[in-house]
Amino acid sequence: MNAAASKPAVVLLSGGLDSATVLAMARAAGYACHALSIDYGQRHGAELAAAARVAAAGGAASHRTVSVNLDAIGGSALTDSLIAVPSAPSAGIPVTYVPARNTVFLAIALGYAEVLDAAAIFVGVNAVDYSGYPDCRPAFVDAFQALARVATKAGVEGHAPRIEAPLLHLSKADIVHRGVALGVDFGLTVSCYNADPLGRACGHCDACRLRADGFAAAGVADPTPYVPA
Amino acid sequence: MNAAASKPAVVLLSGGLDSATVLAMARAAGYACHALSIDYGQRHGAELAAAARVAAAGGAASHRTVSVNLDAIGGSALTDSLIAVPSAPSAGIPVTYVPARNTVFLAIALGYAEVLDAAAIFVGVNAVDYSGYPDCRPAFVDAFQALARVATKAGVEGHAPRIEAPLLHLSKADIVHRGVALGVDFGLTVSCYNADPLGRACGHCDACRLRADGFAAAGVADPTPYVPA
Repeated sequence: MNAAASKPAVVLLSGGLDSATVLAMARAAGYACHALSIDYGQRHGAELAAAARVAAAGGAASHRTVSVNLDAIGGSALTDSLIAVPSAPSAGIPVTYVPARNTVFLAIALGYAEVLDAAAIFVGVNAVDYSGYPDCRPAFVDAFQALARVATKAGVEGHAPRIEAPLLHLSKADIVHRGVALGVDFGLTVSCYNADPLGRACGHCDACRLRADGFAAAGVADPTPYVPA
Repeated sequence: MNAAASKPAVVLLSGGLDSATVLAMARAAGYACHALSIDYGQRHGAELAAAARVAAAGGAASHRTVSVNLDAIGGSALTDSLIAVPSAPSAGIPVTYVPARNTVFLAIALGYAEVLDAAAIFVGVNAVDYSGYPDCRPAFVDAFQALARVATKAGVEGHAPRIEAPLLHLSKADIVHRGVALGVDFGLTVSCYNADPLGRACGHCDACRLRADGFAAAGVADPTPYVPA
């Protein structure tokens, strides 16, 4: 029996490989997991359909989607149709970086955690593979934890939700291993920035490359459905 | 000539009295003001129409609205139709508190500031009249400033936007005085939680009372259009 048994948690669920693993980890820790997906005008809407499948297969207590049209402020290849998603690796902060995306996601999750009186918020940020993203670093997670302590009623009362980022220091291969050990069906997940309406991956974008390399490094057969060449 | 002349700033603009004053203060400080309104499923949609009028009258360089359906997570009388807005003052954190609202607003503003390379984000939070709201306190503003320094590309590069909350320690009467001195037309603004589709105020809710008391204390004639009794 886990001490956290039946305590509610909010789990940010994108429909990708990472957050599917996070959901499995939160469930294994005994939380009642309320999955939260954010529709932020991203091109890969197939991810949101995948999120619903992953929530159901992963035993989430509930799943809901909040929409925020970040495309209205522009600035990213993922939300702005005028900026192309590159098919070759780039240096520095990639054009697929969505300004303040994880801040917006965690802010909405914080509101939901307040409504649920949740003990934790789980988020799949990863500092290893996404080192070019400012909001995937330990300093970001720490600063958001500090904010959560003062931003909400629960925080003022001394029981702010803990920000849990269990993938923070894991490689993609490590994440695949954890997911496999916990029974995650990665065939249900979509990571590709350019997935087709059926959720099939392009095989060429940064997200596809990271994912395929992860399966290869983990020695696990890649279950990803790809668009036929 | 102000040192900040022509520097872009994001100004969170609700269409109410406070944020109209903040826009005037940001303009007076020499910023090119990009007004940002958030449609979060609040009942008083009349505020958003007011925001467009206030942005135009206040000389904003641009005005845009981002929608985020916080009603999907519930928890507040302002977004949840099952919770009544009280017409009498209440103790503690009021039911009109929207969980993590200012965190969500500032998160979206932070993304927009990153796109504009803005020097500042102006927000009309006030610790005097809204002492029951956790996210209207100086500690909240400080924690968000700390987050802004690590959450974005600009922050990593050492030029995070400053979080400017110029109303933080002002009474409603002080705010009215500042606005009048800067030429704000408060007749364009809507503060009421129950405003009718024409933007006319109910005269009874907490927001109406605070506002009317502010005009009275400032010795300024109340220009608010009220619903006929």
